[in-house]
Amino acid sequence: MSNEQIDIAIVGGGISGVYSAWTLQKEFPGKKIVVFEGSDHIGGRLLSVKPPHITDMVAELGGMRILENNQKLIVDLIAELNTLLPDDEQITLYDFPVDEPQNIAFLRGVFLRLADFTTHPDKVPYNLSFLEKGDGPGTIIVNAIEQIVPGITDASLTDEERREMTKNATFDGLPLYKWGFWNLLYRVISSEAYQFSMDAGGYDSTLVNWNAADAIPWYLSDFGISPLYKGFTNGFQQVPITLANLFRTGGGDIRLHQQLHGFEWINDHFELTFHEGEIINAGKLILAMPRRALDLLSPHSPKLQEIQPLISSVTPRPLFKLFTTYGSPWWRISGYTNAAGNFVPVESGRSVTDLPIRQTYYWPKNDGTPSTKGRAMLLASYDDGTNIGFWDGLRPQRKLAWQEGRSHAVLNDPFIGEDDNEIKEADDGLNQTWDQYKAPRRMVTEIARQLRQMHDLDYTPVVRSAAFRDWGEDPYGGGWNSWNIGVKSWEVRDKIVHPIADCPLYICGEAYSDAQGWVEGALQTADIMLASFLNKPVNTGKKTNPVAELEHS
Amino acid sequence: MSNEQIDIAIVGGGISGVYSAWTLQKEFPGKKIVVFEGSDHIGGRLLSVKPPHITDMVAELGGMRILENNQKLIVDLIAELNTLLPDDEQITLYDFPVDEPQNIAFLRGVFLRLADFTTHPDKVPYNLSFLEKGDGPGTIIVNAIEQIVPGITDASLTDEERREMTKNATFDGLPLYKWGFWNLLYRVISSEAYQFSMDAGGYDSTLVNWNAADAIPWYLSDFGISPLYKGFTNGFQQVPITLANLFRTGGGDIRLHQQLHGFEWINDHFELTFHEGEIINAGKLILAMPRRALDLLSPHSPKLQEIQPLISSVTPRPLFKLFTTYGSPWWRISGYTNAAGNFVPVESGRSVTDLPIRQTYYWPKNDGTPSTKGRAMLLASYDDGTNIGFWDGLRPQRKLAWQEGRSHAVLNDPFIGEDDNEIKEADDGLNQTWDQYKAPRRMVTEIARQLRQMHDLDYTPVVRSAAFRDWGEDPYGGGWNSWNIGVKSWEVRDKIVHPIADCPLYICGEAYSDAQGWVEGALQTADIMLASFLNKPVNTGKKTNPVAELEHS
Repeated sequence: MSNEQIDIAIVGGGISGVYSAWTLQKEFPGKKIVVFEGSDHIGGRLLSVKPPHITDMVAELGGMRILENNQKLIVDLIAELNTLLPDDEQITLYDFPVDEPQNIAFLRGVFLRLADFTTHPDKVPYNLSFLEKGDGPGTIIVNAIEQIVPGITDASLTDEERREMTKNATFDGLPLYKWGFWNLLYRVISSEAYQFSMDAGGYDSTLVNWNAADAIPWYLSDFGISPLYKGFTNGFQQVPITLANLFRTGGGDIRLHQQLHGFEWINDHFELTFHEGEIINAGKLILAMPRRALDLLSPHSPKLQEIQPLISSVTPRPLFKLFTTYGSPWWRISGYTNAAGNFVPVESGRSVTDLPIRQTYYWPKNDGTPSTKGRAMLLASYDDGTNIGFWDGLRPQRKLAWQEGRSHAVLNDPFIGEDDNEIKEADDGLNQTWDQYKAPRRMVTEIARQLRQMHDLDYTPVVRSAAFRDWGEDPYGGGWNSWNIGVKSWEVRDKIVHPIADCPLYICGEAYSDAQGWVEGALQTADIMLASFLNKPVNTGKKTNPVAELEHS
Repeated sequence: MSNEQIDIAIVGGGISGVYSAWTLQKEFPGKKIVVFEGSDHIGGRLLSVKPPHITDMVAELGGMRILENNQKLIVDLIAELNTLLPDDEQITLYDFPVDEPQNIAFLRGVFLRLADFTTHPDKVPYNLSFLEKGDGPGTIIVNAIEQIVPGITDASLTDEERREMTKNATFDGLPLYKWGFWNLLYRVISSEAYQFSMDAGGYDSTLVNWNAADAIPWYLSDFGISPLYKGFTNGFQQVPITLANLFRTGGGDIRLHQQLHGFEWINDHFELTFHEGEIINAGKLILAMPRRALDLLSPHSPKLQEIQPLISSVTPRPLFKLFTTYGSPWWRISGYTNAAGNFVPVESGRSVTDLPIRQTYYWPKNDGTPSTKGRAMLLASYDDGTNIGFWDGLRPQRKLAWQEGRSHAVLNDPFIGEDDNEIKEADDGLNQTWDQYKAPRRMVTEIARQLRQMHDLDYTPVVRSAAFRDWGEDPYGGGWNSWNIGVKSWEVRDKIVHPIADCPLYICGEAYSDAQGWVEGALQTADIMLASFLNKPVNTGKKTNPVAELEHS
């Protein structure tokens, strides 16, 4: 009877939620708009954390970069936010290094440098075919894609043009959206080339059997075409936090620790029930969340049960990240002395391996330059796919914490390093404290063992502190989501934002977008949702040419 | 009000269900005992199907063998049933062939014969360590297990003694049940030895990160110790069907196509609600089903929600099987001519590969001998783990049929071969008809392609018919289930059979046993459950010595 009444409830404080809140507030300055977030922080899977005693680095436990030449929406948003922010709070970017030729590829028990893929193909321990030999993993997949959809790797095409091509393309008489990416790749490249591309590419889940009509343009925009990655000086989480601050400044209300349990649509309003039993009425409801979070609501939300086929059109893909800090950047000695007698250190970008740690990033300083002395940090493991199961054995269960109403798991046996004794509370309100995400002791031991193996070192200095996040945990379910085979993603994408004609329920987020796993995708679906909400044309922005030349490493 | 009243409801017509029904009928001849089965057949994951035009073979789409020297309960049960069956309906067994030295291992693009693992270790394309080189996949894992639990591979130990050892063992200060099998294996063998054991062993899911205290004795009883596999002349499904017939003859009632939706415990009786809306009251309830089936009931069954931690203590593992038939056993020519000038054909047992088909069995005749001419059959693919995802791309969704109230999926585009035109209806009531399980056309095309690759042949004769089953489909969820890390399986096993003290709810089946994935496990938990139900000691049978020497192939 005396339930609180609000006009627009937005559930989910990730980027799509706070971006939508900020936009709607500008449209409806008088309305009561509230963002409900189940966890303790704004930003969702953007989670920028400051490691202890390292002042010039931010650990990105979640999203860590953008593709500057291909992701118009986030680039424009940053530009707009910077016009609103004071000079000392600008959102600034740095060049985010990835593949450096001297970095290590430890594959099938063989030590290589990334350059060896193309310069010493005989060292590569995969039985590649004559045509495949000498190509790097990206080139192999790009060449495969060109065989599947001739012409699509033409560098002058835009992302949108590529999507139009795969939407209409067929292979062996069947539309591409009915094909799995893995099934198709197996038709045009050898099984060894496929395995090499997966092992050396660093990811398992990008080459699995997801919708080929989506996988192909998605792959080309990220991995296939020479990407211009940018990192965030103050951490990517600065973007959603800025949006949240602007929304709050405009009178908006953001409530953390508010776990939605379910909702009903009764007599022209939504009745939202929260974990602690509180009930709130809302005129309109925006669910800014990925599939797994929708699945968790579904048993207590009849309207979501009605749209089950839309919700289940994607699959959540766990991503695992673990950061370790050290007294010095010991990995530099894994370099080599070149013909001119100069030492070329391993110091930036990533190394790869088929061990469960998969990808190790030599984490850059806030300006993108490598750490060369003193305290330093690794993104020791960035992995996905079956490797998640390996690390699962060394940590608490992925569903437990959320079920018990907590944001993330509390560890019985955290790793305590030398630098963990004097961690300060979050100092500037912008970053979460590192120690909330401490890694389990046994996990750190195993990571250290695999780092030694991968770098062919008998000794590496002790870990001083370690933090991790597995986005497979509830309520996220995955670090990204992939479209299922047989789904016409372009239809679901436009339909799910406002899935039931006579009910003001809206859904947005990365999961149901063209750029899954990217903030760009979250913004895209938020824009489509907002257009439907406001009954306006979609804010597409002018598409830039993604272009560039093909990768050859 | 006028609901039907029964004394004992058994839900699930697999082996544990009909075995329990038969046993309880003998104890309570006057009681009304009903078995409810959701699908169209008795036997659950035992599904013996007759291929068209091949009279001397039975395709086992589900379980296909027992370990005669190690599985006392099923051996004793067969002996008992044979005393009750007429001479012409006896359950008879044959030696089930597995690894023949001339069979093929196509791994990492390299063609080997199984014998090469030990006789030509330099050909094996894995960077094995000095100590690992020259060992087959089974020996590597057995040696690893011996390092983890010293003494446990002693051939004089019984299964039970091994379980007692792993229950009490620790590694690195932690009890074994808190370790994942994969995590432990990585500590004692090289990553390449692990990968070789997985690729050449034929299974992915047996070496993944499940509870090490269970995985170790489980592995030793099956793969590690020279196994004596036996197949069934008339198909394994004959066992549950015989039990069902005996139960029916004794006055028992079995109802097919009865999908339970959920149940409640009200006023000292169970109220069972079925898919079509029918409600039946039962005094006692036995759920003879695996985890996924329990999960499907759980939302509509408050008593199951109370025991969620017990139910979720195991993980379902999909298994995929596809049979193909041909006009002749073309695979025989993949053999070789030996030093004495004699041709050694490939004709029985299995070949393995790291391609998604993984294991191919040259299917034996009903007496265990190989097919040498005329129509012949392959278990073309027997696979699990991530490979399931590959085949998922070429078939209907695994959850769809059950949700819609059907036993299994109806195909839009089944493969139709020359022998599919005149398939007869099930002729003897014992076997399901093959054509209900027809494989999709695209799946058969891809299987044929991979078979050619694996046998290094440019041409293989056309497939005349094909049938498949993926036990990852609902309501099974998996071909087998594995204990989760951190669970004390011996406690859950004994607890879940009668999980709530004051409520006559009982649970049994392979999923929560010591012999997961085996009929032996289903019988074990049925016996434990029945002992609790009847308040009698457990029928353990006298344990035989599992023995035998270590595998060396």
